[in-house]
Parts: sequence; structure tokens; C-alpha cells
Amino acid sequence: MTSFTYSELLSFTKNIFRAIGCSEDHAALAAKALLSADLRGVDSHGIARLSGYVRLWQAQRVNANPQIKIVHETPSTAVVDGDKGLGLVVGPAAMQIAIDKATQVGTGWVSVKNSNHFGIAGFHGMMALQHDMIGIAMTNASATVAPTFAKERLLGTNPICVVIPAGKEQPFVADFATTTAANGKLEVLQRKNNNAPHGWVQDKDGQPSTDVNELKKGGAMLPLGGDYEHGSHKGYMLGSIVDIFSAVLSGANYGPWVPPFPAYLPMPGHLPGEGIGHFFGAMRIDAFRPAEEFKRHMDTWIQRFKSAAVAEGFERVIIPGEPERAMEKLRMEHGLDLLPAVTEDLQKLATQFSIDFP
Amino acid sequence: MTSFTYSELLSFTKNIFRAIGCSEDHAALAAKALLSADLRGVDSHGIARLSGYVRLWQAQRVNANPQIKIVHETPSTAVVDGDKGLGLVVGPAAMQIAIDKATQVGTGWVSVKNSNHFGIAGFHGMMALQHDMIGIAMTNASATVAPTFAKERLLGTNPICVVIPAGKEQPFVADFATTTAANGKLEVLQRKNNNAPHGWVQDKDGQPSTDVNELKKGGAMLPLGGDYEHGSHKGYMLGSIVDIFSAVLSGANYGPWVPPFPAYLPMPGHLPGEGIGHFFGAMRIDAFRPAEEFKRHMDTWIQRFKSAAVAEGFERVIIPGEPERAMEKLRMEHGLDLLPAVTEDLQKLATQFSIDFP
Repeated sequence: MTSFTYSELLSFTKNIFRAIGCSEDHAALAAKALLSADLRGVDSHGIARLSGYVRLWQAQRVNANPQIKIVHETPSTAVVDGDKGLGLVVGPAAMQIAIDKATQVGTGWVSVKNSNHFGIAGFHGMMALQHDMIGIAMTNASATVAPTFAKERLLGTNPICVVIPAGKEQPFVADFATTTAANGKLEVLQRKNNNAPHGWVQDKDGQPSTDVNELKKGGAMLPLGGDYEHGSHKGYMLGSIVDIFSAVLSGANYGPWVPPFPAYLPMPGHLPGEGIGHFFGAMRIDAFRPAEEFKRHMDTWIQRFKSAAVAEGFERVIIPGEPERAMEKLRMEHGLDLLPAVTEDLQKLATQFSIDFP
Repeated sequence: MTSFTYSELLSFTKNIFRAIGCSEDHAALAAKALLSADLRGVDSHGIARLSGYVRLWQAQRVNANPQIKIVHETPSTAVVDGDKGLGLVVGPAAMQIAIDKATQVGTGWVSVKNSNHFGIAGFHGMMALQHDMIGIAMTNASATVAPTFAKERLLGTNPICVVIPAGKEQPFVADFATTTAANGKLEVLQRKNNNAPHGWVQDKDGQPSTDVNELKKGGAMLPLGGDYEHGSHKGYMLGSIVDIFSAVLSGANYGPWVPPFPAYLPMPGHLPGEGIGHFFGAMRIDAFRPAEEFKRHMDTWIQRFKSAAVAEGFERVIIPGEPERAMEKLRMEHGLDLLPAVTEDLQKLATQFSIDFP
């Protein structure tokens, strides 16, 4: 492990995005969005993916200078064409449109096509907080998940983020994959050579498995619930809703046709849409009741849940967003440790683009 | 088991609602909403609860003649005060407001306070279909579910319904409790004296249990996922989002303060709001892209999922809403079988209000 400060990694990442042709503003925004994953402890979606984004650009699947535009709108909705831009840049632009519409008519809802991976959903959803709005962000992703009863992969891990402001308490920030376990958790077990718990993956024939490498052998991840008896049809429904809101509403690719993140994987044939899809929402709190009143009740809600009686062996009930916030504080102060493989990968990028490596 | 036709039960139910003082229109609507649960196979939420609604009215917790009104609004939002009405009547009124707002500005979002149980979420969400809109419905409910790590009950089964129109294919209708298993499934096992699968319930100390009667002994149901290792924190987040959208946004009761359905249970003390809360949404499809285009892609989506390769022992992947639609067709044609206890309960109601029993 090598340790870096946040500002070192931010500056390096921004320089890489500048090097592939992003504008100053876009490079700064993309770097901030990408590193928000590392800060919040979602290491699988952060700087470890920087070289992956560069390879997508090399494969001409990412446009470094997108003309992001609204192609259809009503007072409370829009469809945005991301022009093959980095999702890290398209996402914030679309979320801002949702916020602007909420400012005007109470809520704003934006479905996005022709985009790429946008990092963590939480970064986009949390943009709503400074406007006293509830923020919603979701995205589809390439198919790694088998619907209940299937042995085929038809859905991505399709995360949902819902961010809700509070008063004296910190905001409620839910950000979760609609699978039993996020891909990043599988990767951690792969590095440790450990088995996966039951209900996380299945083999290529659709049979239960605890092999963490099952995905490489044609197997699939499982929807939240794990199996039918434990409600996996609900996880499958959630992942489907994310897919449809993000892509069928906007005109992006859906289901098994969502483009893969690794540039070396072939694109699916007969694409029904353009790029990857996202969906964003913003709801002004005072479009429902006075913001101060709402926040006072959110504080009561949070305090009641924090003080719940717990089962033996646990400290207390966690409010969504708490662990990530603690991680962000820690890493901002003490720096971020990167795995040797990630550091090497970044050093190669530095050499490739003649950029100083911290 | 005794068998009845749908129209016999509908007419009887309407007469009961008339007898407690509902208007002709309200009684007809409430009966239709309640029986939609029986038709769709959600027997736990249908006519079996009719006497429960009557007892709530006797306890003066239900107002048979509510003045349902908007207390705050913007072009795309409203908060509705249900005036202690039946949720079966307040729900459709609020959903209609969401639909009207969507007609005007693309989407409509309505949070409801001071209501009661509204039957199945699907009935309300499906109102959007005839308007070529996506429909969303959710509600909180009295606390039977322990958040991850807690031994206390702080959330209801808090269902989410999302209804999405298709073209030649039947619509996508997701309607599910945010717990591993809905209460109705536990009740079925209770009648059979069977054990519950792991991950459905825990005992009063927060320890895993397979005893289907655990709720009566101070135990709790578990959020979708079952335990932390299988993502129960995600089910807990989903249930929390439903609670906050339904009640903290509107001014209803939330968390452990949601009034219980059985009238004999005491009301929680120090209520932070009024009644039970719901949340409804409607999104006009053509606020995003032409409806015919969207529906063509939904058909492709549905056909692709229906034709997925399946694991051994399964017929095919189910599209959300299919089993309930098949049940509705069957029961509409062949009638509904009621358990002896339910029939007896209805006969007592008939006697109580001097109404003919079919």
C-alpha cells in the first residue's frame, strides 16, 4: 500500500483528464466526482478505474468534449443526450437540470442517454443538499446480474441513491447496488481468496455458488434477496426499475445491451439505444412543507433510529450515509492508501501522458 | 372454504361501507380498492380486513365522510390531508392529483398525511396506466420491522409500487413490501403451522429465528436481505425512504409512531404527526419521449426478459405483475374462495349492520 493525500490524487486525476482533451472545468469536475468514491470508501468505483476511463476514450467510446444537451423537456422533466461524454461530467450536468426544474416547479426529473459510467450515484444525488432538496440518482450498468430464475445476465448492479436533508443531524444518504452485494465487495473477497456467502453469486447453470470468481466463468451476481425464498424477485424488480427509468425513458441501451466498462470487451450487437442511461430527481422540500419543519422531524426520525435498542453484539443502528461520512473525514485528514496494482496502473498512465506522478 | 363471485363480494363490501356512513361514491371506490387485493391474490390485504376497517371506524380512528384537501402545493407537488378518511378513498384522490399535475407539467408528486391503510399499493399505482403514465405508490405502516442491528421494531412493511406501461405486452407492475417476505406470507405459514425460512423474522432479543409466531412474542420481521451479510441494510434503507417520503414530507406519523391497524392495540404516545402517510407519483411518458416509441422499447425489454435462458427446474423469468394478472383473470371467472374464519367474520358484519350476506 502506498499513501497519498486527497489533493495529490485529485490534481493527478485532473491532469489525466486534461491530457485526454477534457476542458479545465470538465477535468476538475470529473476528478472530483471520481475521487468522491475513494473518499467515501467505495474504492472499486474511484481512481482504480481511471485507466479504464482512459481506455474507453482510446477506444473512442468516450468523447472528451461532449455537447451535453436537452433533447426533450416539460416544466418538470427532461431527456438529456450526454454526447458520449464521461458520466462523471454528464451526471452533474443532468442533476443540475433536475435541480433547476425543481427550483421552478417543485420537482425535476431527468433521464439521460448516450452517457458512460458516472462513478458513485451518491456524488450526484448529494448535489441536491445545498438547495434543501431531496436528491435521487440511479444508473444502469452492463449486465452482470441474473434475474430471479434466469441463468443469463440481463441487469447491471443498477444502484439507487436517495439523499434527504436533515437539520442538526447529518443528511440521510442511501446509496446502494440493487444486488445482494456490490461488485466491490466481491473484488475484496477475490483478493483475499475467500469464498462468497450464499446468495451473492450463481454459476453459469444458474446453480447457487460461493465461488467469488464465478463471474469470470459465466456465472452471475444475484439480485438483492439472493433467491426467491428470500425475496430476490424484489431485488430483480428494483434493478429493472432502475434500468427502465435510466434507459427506456431516455433512449439509452438497456438490459443485456448496456455497453461494458472494460474497453477490451466487445460491444453487444444490435443496440436498441445510445450509450448508458442514468436517471436523476430533485424534490424541493418546501414544495411539500416548510423546510425547517421538515428538518426538525428528520432530526427526530434520525435520533429515534440512532437510539434504537440493539441486538447483542452490535453498537447501534446506523443511519444511511454515516459510515461513508466517517471514511471521508478520515481519508481527507490521513490520506488514501492505494493497492500496489492501482499505484502501478497510475504510474503507467503518468508515463503514457508525460505527467508527474505524486 | 366457501366460494363467492367477485360481484357478490364487491356489492357486500360496498354495502358495509355505506352502512358505516360512506357516500355512495366513496363506498363503491373503497370496495373496489379493497377487493383488488383479493382479485390479485394478496388475500391478507383484502376483504379479510373489512371487519378491521369497521373496528377502526367504531374506534373513531376512521372518518367515513372525509373532506380530503390539498394543504400545500406547487405545479408538480402537493401535500394532501386525508381528514382521517379510509386510505382506500384517500389514496385514489391523492393519486388523481398526481396524475392531474403530471398532465400539466410532466410529473406529479403527492405526499399524504392523516390517512389510514390504503389496501394494496398496486391499485393506486395502476391508475396511471390509462393516462400513459408511470405510476408510483407507497405507504408507511405500523412498526413490525427491525432495522439492521436493532431488536426493536421501527418500520412497517412499507411497500413500493411502480407501474410502467408497455405496448403489445402487458404493463410492468412491481408491488412489493420492503421486507424479506410480506406479512401475508407469514400468515400463510402460521395457518399451516410451518417454520419460516431463515432471514424472515428475529426474536425479541434480535436473534435469528424461524418461528412464524415470533411477532406475537415481541420479535420482528426483517428488512429485505434478511441480515447484514445479505444486504438487509438495503432493505432497511428502502423501508426508511418509504417512511420519510410518506410521512416526514407530509406531516404524518413515522417510524414507531405509525398507528396500528388493529383497533384494539393502543395508539403510540406523543405522536409527531397525523395518521398514516402515503406517497404517490405520476410521470407522463411523453414528458420524456413519444409514448409509442417508449412502449415499443418496453415491449422489447419485456420480450427479452421473458425469453431469458433459465436455470434448471424453472419455466421462465417472470415479468412483474404477471402472477397477479393471471390470478385476477382466474378469480374474476371462477370466483374467490374465502377461509372459514373470514366468512364467519363477514357474516357477523352482515348481522351487525342488517345487511344480506351472499
